Amino acid sequence: MRNGKAFLNRNAQRIVDEMIDNADRLRIAHSRGSLGEHLIDAGANEEGGIDAGMRIIEICMGGLGAVSTQLNRGAGRWPLGIHVRSSQPVLACLASQYAGWNLSHGKYFAMGSGPIRTLARVEHLFEEIVYEEPDAKTSVIVLETAAPPPREIVEKVARSTGLAPEALTFIYAPTQSLTGSVQIVGRVLEVALHKAHDLKFPLDAIIDGAGYAPLPAPHPDFLQAMGRTNDAIIYGGLVQLFVHGAASDARALAEQLPSRTSRDYGQPFADIFRAFKGDFYAIDPHLFSPAEVIVTAIESGETFRSGGIDNAMLEQSLG
Amino acid sequence: MRNGKAFLNRNAQRIVDEMIDNADRLRIAHSRGSLGEHLIDAGANEEGGIDAGMRIIEICMGGLGAVSTQLNRGAGRWPLGIHVRSSQPVLACLASQYAGWNLSHGKYFAMGSGPIRTLARVEHLFEEIVYEEPDAKTSVIVLETAAPPPREIVEKVARSTGLAPEALTFIYAPTQSLTGSVQIVGRVLEVALHKAHDLKFPLDAIIDGAGYAPLPAPHPDFLQAMGRTNDAIIYGGLVQLFVHGAASDARALAEQLPSRTSRDYGQPFADIFRAFKGDFYAIDPHLFSPAEVIVTAIESGETFRSGGIDNAMLEQSLG
Amino acid sequence: MRNGKAFLNRNAQRIVDEMIDNADRLRIAHSRGSLGEHLIDAGANEEGGIDAGMRIIEICMGGLGAVSTQLNRGAGRWPLGIHVRSSQPVLACLASQYAGWNLSHGKYFAMGSGPIRTLARVEHLFEEIVYEEPDAKTSVIVLETAAPPPREIVEKVARSTGLAPEALTFIYAPTQSLTGSVQIVGRVLEVALHKAHDLKFPLDAIIDGAGYAPLPAPHPDFLQAMGRTNDAIIYGGLVQLFVHGAASDARALAEQLPSRTSRDYGQPFADIFRAFKGDFYAIDPHLFSPAEVIVTAIESGETFRSGGIDNAMLEQSLG
Repeated sequence: MRNGKAFLNRNAQRIVDEMIDNADRLRIAHSRGSLGEHLIDAGANEEGGIDAGMRIIEICMGGLGAVSTQLNRGAGRWPLGIHVRSSQPVLACLASQYAGWNLSHGKYFAMGSGPIRTLARVEHLFEEIVYEEPDAKTSVIVLETAAPPPREIVEKVARSTGLAPEALTFIYAPTQSLTGSVQIVGRVLEVALHKAHDLKFPLDAIIDGAGYAPLPAPHPDFLQAMGRTNDAIIYGGLVQLFVHGAASDARALAEQLPSRTSRDYGQPFADIFRAFKGDFYAIDPHLFSPAEVIVTAIESGETFRSGGIDNAMLEQSLG
Repeated sequence: MRNGKAFLNRNAQRIVDEMIDNADRLRIAHSRGSLGEHLIDAGANEEGGIDAGMRIIEICMGGLGAVSTQLNRGAGRWPLGIHVRSSQPVLACLASQYAGWNLSHGKYFAMGSGPIRTLARVEHLFEEIVYEEPDAKTSVIVLETAAPPPREIVEKVARSTGLAPEALTFIYAPTQSLTGSVQIVGRVLEVALHKAHDLKFPLDAIIDGAGYAPLPAPHPDFLQAMGRTNDAIIYGGLVQLFVHGAASDARALAEQLPSRTSRDYGQPFADIFRAFKGDFYAIDPHLFSPAEVIVTAIESGETFRSGGIDNAMLEQSLG
Repeated sequence: MRNGKAFLNRNAQRIVDEMIDNADRLRIAHSRGSLGEHLIDAGANEEGGIDAGMRIIEICMGGLGAVSTQLNRGAGRWPLGIHVRSSQPVLACLASQYAGWNLSHGKYFAMGSGPIRTLARVEHLFEEIVYEEPDAKTSVIVLETAAPPPREIVEKVARSTGLAPEALTFIYAPTQSLTGSVQIVGRVLEVALHKAHDLKFPLDAIIDGAGYAPLPAPHPDFLQAMGRTNDAIIYGGLVQLFVHGAASDARALAEQLPSRTSRDYGQPFADIFRAFKGDFYAIDPHLFSPAEVIVTAIESGETFRSGGIDNAMLEQSLG
């Protein structure tokens, strides 16, 4: 990406402005925090919904994703799903959408997502992602939480990005909300990118991608809600990647990418989480990927497939 | 909806303006009536088509719906269908899209649909729907007819809404047109909402929804055309609703909502209509609903399913 | 189409301008040629991708098409596909999208596609298509090539259209690119229109249409790449047309339209091409059409179906 002309932050701000203009119909609320930061409650005290969630996916992908819903008759008990696509999957998903910026403070636990991460660049990931947007005047951060960030986090974000609090928008919605359910399964392509990176597949070789995951019902219990959104991807997600490089590498990626290659595959995520006593980082990180993967090696023209939808597990987890 | 800031009438006007700008490509015609009212022939003497129908669905939903076509391979003989979605289903479908305003006059039979109903508020339904748009300067009404409204109806609409005739747009297309076929099956979510209301399910508990119905071929005979569009929904429609409240209420809704719970289920609609000698109001109103229903109880996280697509009936009716 | 108010060239220019503004994210490059003509490399030395290809489909259809991707679970090994739709299929597909203008020069072989063909009007087809856009100030041409056009071709296009070279945009991407793969299968509806025309079906009777084809992987070898994109349509394409006229004509069209009526059906296109020693014009032109066809006769309300997806051939050809 030459000169950062993808404008992830500027794109995201445009969607934020449109959300604020349509706050009532999206059932979200815009307010200002104590430092002047913009706060959007998209599913905590406000109801939110599928429309709010769809826009948050677009924001998280820095405006570089195409996001739509589909009603797929052949898709079993969960015909309504989210289809995402990006011809800049590394920027859209890893540089922006991945919830990789730890913004926890005391009891407030939050992982920041969205284009602001490209300005802060505090994660190791950014050693490998060349993207700059030096003229970004504002930015947006998405938090999967039930509360706005404490003052200290706003200050930290301002400090890390060089932007004043008034130039920052924090969008938050908990895992248990319908908004949350939508925006999390909208990460079906992102988790594939992230695992590909973990597998040491070179990021700049991934040039295009598309994904689909069924939309699970939200659940009032955090653990169940988190379980369902993860399971929608792990047992019901489908991703196709288009990659450069040797066909053998594409084949290896396809074989290793699906969730079923993980040691922990085969139980609802909530049960796995409980079995590990809530220690998220004890769970095999390779579990977090789509059920079914298609990898197309652009240069050889070969396509490799692996994994598959696990309807039994979907039924057990999603209900 | 606080202060009516969903702007259904304003949203609809914007789509009308765009339709008029693109009248040729949509194969529609714009003219002025004797009182200065705007008339759009979208399928009577003009050809219309799928594009015209899609925009009319958007207008009917007051701009609060997402409308797209899908070609679903697994969907049998009618793979082309209409997918609608709204995170304001009560406003989009009941306050606006439902054809509930009787605008008949002498031999002219017409039920008005669209956001103008929120200004007129002459239907009982509006005792339960809190929505106001006091600053609406113009409005739009959709009529499933082959002719523009007579002068008396234009006067009645102006009187009921407090708007001058020049501020009103009447869009009309008969049931038999391709435009009509599209805009009618685009009501798949609306009929679910309407039946839910009949079943005394509280409207403010329905917070999100999506639907799909196959697009039937139009038919030159009014009765057959009406039959097919109804049957596309009754035997081929699929809806998912997201609701608040007790899971037991959501379960009861799911069980009662599908068309197959109706006494009159099991014959092509045209035959039923004939059997009742054309007395529309003798037909069980509970027949008018989608074939398959999914209801998700947001607060308990449970999902209930009922009904199912009836391919045999679709084949018999849609041909 | 009265007075040419569909504005195909103007619509296409708007999409071109948006592409240039987003060149980096689309991985395309804009430059000026020796005569001042605008050049867009969308997949030759530049990478391009699905997003670039989608926009080229929209440009090729003169802005009169609705273009989207779908991930269809039930669609076998190639779930990602392109859905196109137009309520002006003759203008969008034949007057504009069809690659019918021979712009070869010496060793440079190119068939021009896009709305510029309605200005040049050098093909026989335009004896039957009434469309004029006399006030077009600029225009766009799409070439399925790996190189920009030579000076002589730019001069020829300028001469034929009466536009200065600076008013012309040439977009090029080779068959082997991902951009190419997308924009070619986006012709699934166009090939149906073209064959209908070959079968002497009256063009003005075709009033609406929709299509879907799976997106094949690009292939580095030109012959394989051409083979796959053709096979995606020939063995995997689905089209529905809405037509005027006698039901018997619609039935005959449905029966004759699918690819399987062709003498040469049943082998991967690349093998057929080889068997005819690369003589494209020796191949039965009736092979170029979708696998499955649905034709709806608007006036009688009847629908006719023929052909079907050939998964075995898709697997053999697309891999």
